[in-house]
Amino acid sequence: MQKITILIHCEDQKGIIAAVTNFILKIEGNIIYIDQHVDVEQNEFFMRLECELTNKEIGLASIQNDFHQTIVQDFNMSWEIYTKDQKPRMALFVSKYDHCLFDILGRYSAGELNVEIPLIVSNHEDLRSIAERFNIPFHYIPFTKENKAEGEQQQIELLKEYGIDFIVLARYMQIITPNLIALYENKIINIHHSFLPAFPGAKPYHSAFKRGVKIIGATSHYVTQELDEGPIIEQDITRVSHINSIEDFIMKGRDLERIVLARAIKLHSERKTMVFSNKTVVFS
Amino acid sequence: MQKITILIHCEDQKGIIAAVTNFILKIEGNIIYIDQHVDVEQNEFFMRLECELTNKEIGLASIQNDFHQTIVQDFNMSWEIYTKDQKPRMALFVSKYDHCLFDILGRYSAGELNVEIPLIVSNHEDLRSIAERFNIPFHYIPFTKENKAEGEQQQIELLKEYGIDFIVLARYMQIITPNLIALYENKIINIHHSFLPAFPGAKPYHSAFKRGVKIIGATSHYVTQELDEGPIIEQDITRVSHINSIEDFIMKGRDLERIVLARAIKLHSERKTMVFSNKTVVFS
Amino acid sequence: MQKITILIHCEDQKGIIAAVTNFILKIEGNIIYIDQHVDVEQNEFFMRLECELTNKEIGLASIQNDFHQTIVQDFNMSWEIYTKDQKPRMALFVSKYDHCLFDILGRYSAGELNVEIPLIVSNHEDLRSIAERFNIPFHYIPFTKENKAEGEQQQIELLKEYGIDFIVLARYMQIITPNLIALYENKIINIHHSFLPAFPGAKPYHSAFKRGVKIIGATSHYVTQELDEGPIIEQDITRVSHINSIEDFIMKGRDLERIVLARAIKLHSERKTMVFSNKTVVFS
Amino acid sequence: MQKITILIHCEDQKGIIAAVTNFILKIEGNIIYIDQHVDVEQNEFFMRLECELTNKEIGLASIQNDFHQTIVQDFNMSWEIYTKDQKPRMALFVSKYDHCLFDILGRYSAGELNVEIPLIVSNHEDLRSIAERFNIPFHYIPFTKENKAEGEQQQIELLKEYGIDFIVLARYMQIITPNLIALYENKIINIHHSFLPAFPGAKPYHSAFKRGVKIIGATSHYVTQELDEGPIIEQDITRVSHINSIEDFIMKGRDLERIVLARAIKLHSERKTMVFSNKTVVFS
Repeated sequence: MQKITILIHCEDQKGIIAAVTNFILKIEGNIIYIDQHVDVEQNEFFMRLECELTNKEIGLASIQNDFHQTIVQDFNMSWEIYTKDQKPRMALFVSKYDHCLFDILGRYSAGELNVEIPLIVSNHEDLRSIAERFNIPFHYIPFTKENKAEGEQQQIELLKEYGIDFIVLARYMQIITPNLIALYENKIINIHHSFLPAFPGAKPYHSAFKRGVKIIGATSHYVTQELDEGPIIEQDITRVSHINSIEDFIMKGRDLERIVLARAIKLHSERKTMVFSNKTVVFS
Repeated sequence: MQKITILIHCEDQKGIIAAVTNFILKIEGNIIYIDQHVDVEQNEFFMRLECELTNKEIGLASIQNDFHQTIVQDFNMSWEIYTKDQKPRMALFVSKYDHCLFDILGRYSAGELNVEIPLIVSNHEDLRSIAERFNIPFHYIPFTKENKAEGEQQQIELLKEYGIDFIVLARYMQIITPNLIALYENKIINIHHSFLPAFPGAKPYHSAFKRGVKIIGATSHYVTQELDEGPIIEQDITRVSHINSIEDFIMKGRDLERIVLARAIKLHSERKTMVFSNKTVVFS
Repeated sequence: MQKITILIHCEDQKGIIAAVTNFILKIEGNIIYIDQHVDVEQNEFFMRLECELTNKEIGLASIQNDFHQTIVQDFNMSWEIYTKDQKPRMALFVSKYDHCLFDILGRYSAGELNVEIPLIVSNHEDLRSIAERFNIPFHYIPFTKENKAEGEQQQIELLKEYGIDFIVLARYMQIITPNLIALYENKIINIHHSFLPAFPGAKPYHSAFKRGVKIIGATSHYVTQELDEGPIIEQDITRVSHINSIEDFIMKGRDLERIVLARAIKLHSERKTMVFSNKTVVFS
Repeated sequence: MQKITILIHCEDQKGIIAAVTNFILKIEGNIIYIDQHVDVEQNEFFMRLECELTNKEIGLASIQNDFHQTIVQDFNMSWEIYTKDQKPRMALFVSKYDHCLFDILGRYSAGELNVEIPLIVSNHEDLRSIAERFNIPFHYIPFTKENKAEGEQQQIELLKEYGIDFIVLARYMQIITPNLIALYENKIINIHHSFLPAFPGAKPYHSAFKRGVKIIGATSHYVTQELDEGPIIEQDITRVSHINSIEDFIMKGRDLERIVLARAIKLHSERKTMVFSNKTVVFS
């Protein structure tokens, strides 16, 4: 049985849910999941819907076409429809830290992630051996002040060549260029090692230690032009105390970074996130 | 503008959501919240829906009648429709522990709970002064092995007299009788001071201490004939360590009991819980 | 049997623990709790010690005197010794929010707090009736731009009159004056309704909502001249999501504020906190 | 500078701390960490102490000898002294689940664990390729009802041959034999995929799902003769809801298992755990 996922976003108005559910009924679908969100302040409507199609004759293109003609124009709707077996293709960007890379590749090898990982990009050679251990192509693209334009060009070509749908920065220690952000809008996931908006920028564990906080955090978010200001996907925290050194903060933080980044990858790859007004709607 | 909440439960089948959302459209309602759940294993369908009605002419009875005739029979559905301004009436049952009582009455006085509390029942006189401090009628009903039938009779009469919709056992230390449970099926909320199903019955903190657990919990659940076996509404936990004595467990547990019971009251009073197969569906 | 608590702070150096434990042995004490902390970066030493004295003849003054002469000068130590039965006297400062007040007074009435609360001070009359319900003197001291000096004077006189040891700001919505802060250095506890250092100042829930965070927090800290910059005593957090409105943030935050403030009161009143370099050492 | 860690356990009595800290003073040590615990009920004393030795001439054997003669007999003490650079040697036992194995080997490769892992043992061949990817010897020892004695013999020989200090069962799906447990008393760490003592034995996620819990957990503990009844080292939990299937429970549980097992390995390898009366003292 074919399963499809529909994501919808439009201005809130009467009758959207009725129209969409009638459409599902028409194509002989059985809704197994529906969730919606109304942003009352901004009058925006969001919906995520999963359904099973008993009629095997109907293809995805035909559904998309039908959906477009029947509903989309009436409601001035932006929308996406996926079949469940389309695994998104994900590129990993890394630098020198290996703990998130090990964690993601371990999960990937264990079959926990609904993605293909055809490509690892790095501005250093350090982690090549890990990529090789997991049999994933590793591309070294140096990235310095001097070669930004060239580096970006190489990145973009590789992403196209490998048909990449979204990018994960697994502690990649370089600013992403505006062109790349524009190409992958709301499709570049970063892990920041603090509880944003506290401690943006460099060395957040050092700042947290200095401030004497009792809890540290990690934040995964979509990358935008403003550093560490993009829409937050997921956050989590862990307790620290006066007995913990900066090294302890960093060590405890590694577990947070791993978990929070893995959850964001999972949510994005299962098409459970939508972005509006620099915030995310995250369907559970 | 009138707001109504609809709860629906029936066998899963095609077209339910379409039928219900078409109904809302017909009565000129605007859906501001819809959530549904399909229990795939058992093929059961649950839905909770909130909508605003722009047409002020339509009354609750008329909606209920219309809903019943239009939809209910087609789907063999059990359902409830409430207007948002109907506050459920809640009775508090207490014994000698005062911390949950103080917490609930503090929240009630601070306007945090969407309930009326017209009645406190106790099998001891100890907490009368607290009830009086908050100006709530306090009824002492002794309850011993010898007077069970009589005690139950008095309880039931009081509950009727005060028009009680649901009961909260705020560390009430007596077994509830089968008749009362039958009268208030899935409408009696208990707080148990352990992470059920670990440590049911008496003295759970002592058992947890003896076992050397690193985390203790509290559980709110609907009361059924089987002690501490009813559908779980909410649970939470807190960390303990070897430095904590049984007295520390009890003290830390008090905070858990307060919070977990308060959340259950909030969920129940806002009609966010449904029960099936000894489990709860808790809409967020 | 008499129980005493000793707090020590000095530069880190060899032999401190040996000296102190030898002292305890000399006065026939049995150590039931010892915890120490070395701030390696700053070379500072902190210790907290509880012991039981079998010899009933020895009084607190004599121990203090002996301790001073035997040890303090050798190590250039700052120190405090308390007997366990000295309950600190705490003043509550409130404005219009009642939830923290209800919570603290409920806990106090239930015997959970090791303090005396002889005094509630407010810059509004709104919460007088709650104070009366719990039989605690309520003093209305208006506090505006115009009468700051006078208001501060009244506050200080009351605190002296009632022999107040420390102050708790239970959502008191006025800046504390520098003179009062100087008089009660590291003895004024505030609850801030955000996960500091994120969202200091006014309306943190609104800022958190706007930023789209997935977790909100509350922070209790000692009050210093810099607003919301004082040493953090305790923090905690709770999850939020896109479905939560600002009102939900505020409601969920109330539970955090209650719990985090109550924990800070407990820690301070049991002499488990020490302050150095704008950070706290919190012994468990 | 040499660092040593001392663990002590004896009946509680006056003067222990003074005696030990005087000893440290005598060998010109500087205490950088001291923590102790008194089990008041059972009158047992536990201590963990770290110190730096400025005198490079003194060797570990000499300290141990001196300590034994000076202190141990007076207090009838059991004790251990380690130098910080002695990494314990750890064997991994696995079956078919790979997620804990990937996690531990990832952490090990990233330098997060203070252990040597010279050996992986399995009753299946499935995970050999992962071991090879990380260059760790993998030994297949079939283990069935029929060959228990032989299997145990092979295990014990391998453990001796590789000089193994402690064993980690990373979802090893076979009962450990009494002989092996006796040889490695309080040195075999298991991860159980439930919040013990709830749901011991097989299929805990299924049982948790059936019971309708709102929180699931994982528990790491030392293995004893009684299945899932050994001293608990660490536990953690995560929230679930009615929307989660058994498959979701299992997937969420994997993250718990990874984290809780990794923490237990860290605590054990840093000599922060002590066992008494089927409970652990876990120094932070």
